[in-house]
Amino acid sequence: MADDKWTESVRSVKGVILDMCGVLYDSGEGGGVPIEGSVEAVKRLKASDLQLRFCTNETQATREKFVAKLCRMGFEINVSEVFPPAPAVVSVLKQRNLRPHLLVHDDVVPEFDGVDKSNPNCVVIGDAADNFSYENMNAAFRVLIGLEKPVLFSMGRGRYYKETDGLKLDVGVYMKALEYACDVEAEVVGKPAPMFFQTVLNDMGLQPHEVFMIGDDLVNDVGGAQQCGMKGLQVRTGKYRPSDERHPTVTADGYVDNLAAAVDAILKHRCP
Amino acid sequence: MADDKWTESVRSVKGVILDMCGVLYDSGEGGGVPIEGSVEAVKRLKASDLQLRFCTNETQATREKFVAKLCRMGFEINVSEVFPPAPAVVSVLKQRNLRPHLLVHDDVVPEFDGVDKSNPNCVVIGDAADNFSYENMNAAFRVLIGLEKPVLFSMGRGRYYKETDGLKLDVGVYMKALEYACDVEAEVVGKPAPMFFQTVLNDMGLQPHEVFMIGDDLVNDVGGAQQCGMKGLQVRTGKYRPSDERHPTVTADGYVDNLAAAVDAILKHRCP
Repeated sequence: MADDKWTESVRSVKGVILDMCGVLYDSGEGGGVPIEGSVEAVKRLKASDLQLRFCTNETQATREKFVAKLCRMGFEINVSEVFPPAPAVVSVLKQRNLRPHLLVHDDVVPEFDGVDKSNPNCVVIGDAADNFSYENMNAAFRVLIGLEKPVLFSMGRGRYYKETDGLKLDVGVYMKALEYACDVEAEVVGKPAPMFFQTVLNDMGLQPHEVFMIGDDLVNDVGGAQQCGMKGLQVRTGKYRPSDERHPTVTADGYVDNLAAAVDAILKHRCP
Repeated sequence: MADDKWTESVRSVKGVILDMCGVLYDSGEGGGVPIEGSVEAVKRLKASDLQLRFCTNETQATREKFVAKLCRMGFEINVSEVFPPAPAVVSVLKQRNLRPHLLVHDDVVPEFDGVDKSNPNCVVIGDAADNFSYENMNAAFRVLIGLEKPVLFSMGRGRYYKETDGLKLDVGVYMKALEYACDVEAEVVGKPAPMFFQTVLNDMGLQPHEVFMIGDDLVNDVGGAQQCGMKGLQVRTGKYRPSDERHPTVTADGYVDNLAAAVDAILKHRCP
C-alpha cells in the first residue's frame, strides 16, 4: 500500500522532516513506547544521504531532556536536529522585548531561564497538561485581560494527542479558550505556522519542494507542510483516525501505515 | 444620569427581568455580598404592579440552594421566580432521550437526579469552576470524540464573571475549548439563547416590547434580550467594563450606575 501514486514525487526528494510523537513513539506514563519499526526507520534515513530533521510541537520538556528520552527508547537523534516551539518563542520574546507569564509544563520552564518574567506583558501557553487547572487558567486570563492590547503566544494549536492511556487535550484547545475569554487571536509558534517550518527548511538549506514532511496530524503536520510547498505524508499511527482520509480541506500527498512503510517507499523510489 | 433618553421607552413597561450575579450581588467566598441598594430595589419592584422575574446563568447550585443564599443576603425572592439553565437542559435531555456526561459544579448535580446518566450519549457543561481540571476536561472530551455525532450542551456561554477576589473564567470559555477539540458547535441553554428568554416571557404572559432586561453582561443579558425584542439596560456593576459602552456590535438601550438607579428611573417614568 506504500507504493501509491505519491511515490512518483519521491524522485527529487533531498530531505525529510519527521514529526515525533505519534510517528516515532506513543507518549504516555514512563515516557512512552517506540512505534514498531520507527527506530530502524530513523536509522535507515540517517544512513542515507537524505537530510533529516525533527519538527515537533512537544512542549513538555527541554530539548535536552526530550532527546535523552528518545535516545533511551533507542532513537539516534541529536539535540541540534530537533526543532520544538519553546526556543522559537524565546527568540520572539527577546526580539519584541516581551516579558511572559507562562502557562506551560513544569519541565519546559528551564527553556525560559534567560527570559525576564517580571511584570508580564504577554502570556505564553504550551501543552501544560495537568497545569491546565482552573486556577492557572484564571491567572493567565487575568494577565491578558489586564493588558491594554493582550498578546497571547501558543506553542502549537493541536486539538489532542494520543497517550498510552487514551486521547488527551492539546494546547490548541486552551488557546481557543483564552482567545474567546479575551477576544484576542493567539500568535501560534510551532506547527502549522509557516515561519516555524521555514526555520527548519533554512537549517537544511533545501527548497520546500525537495522535502517531505511525515506526521500523524493531518492539519498541523501535513496541511502545514503543504502550505509551505512541501509534500506531506500522514502515517496511520498516533492520533490518526480513518476519517482523516475524508477530511474536507486537507488531503495528504500520501497515507502510509507507519513510518517504516514511508521510509521503505521513499528509499525505494527516490533517485539517488 | 439615569434620566437618559431610554426612560422614554419605560412608559409602556409591564415587566422586568433581572440578571442576578453582578446586578443583585457580587459572588465570592462565603456566597458573596449584595450590591449597594439592590435589596431595596428588588423590594420596590415587588411592591409595584410590574411583573418581576430573575433570569440567570447560575449553574453552581440547585435553584433551592441558590435562592436560599440570596434570601440570606436579604433578597425576597421565590424559587418559582428564578430561571436558571439546569432545569431547562434537563427538560431538553428528556425530550430528546439523551443521557448526559456532566461536567458541572458539584452543587448543581442534584438538578440532574432524575436523569439517566449511564452510557452517556452527550455532554453537558456548566460553570464547573475548580471542576474544570485537565482530567475532567479530558473525560468530557473522550465522551464527545467517541460519539458518531457529538452533542454538547453548554449552560450559558459567558466569558468571565467577577467574584470578590477577581475575574473568573465562565463556562463559555470551556465550551469553546471542547467545540474546537471535537469540531462541534455547542447547543447553548441559558442566556443569550432566545428560547431561554422566551420561556421567561411565556411565564410572565407578556410581549417582549413590554419587558426590560437588566444585566451586567452586555452581550449575554442586554444583547440577548434585545434580539428577542426586549429593551436591555446594562448596569455599571459586576463584570461591567467602561469599554462595554463602545462595544462594536451591542449597544444597550441605557447604561445605569446600578440596579437602584435603574429601578428609580423605571418607577419614575412608567405610566401606571
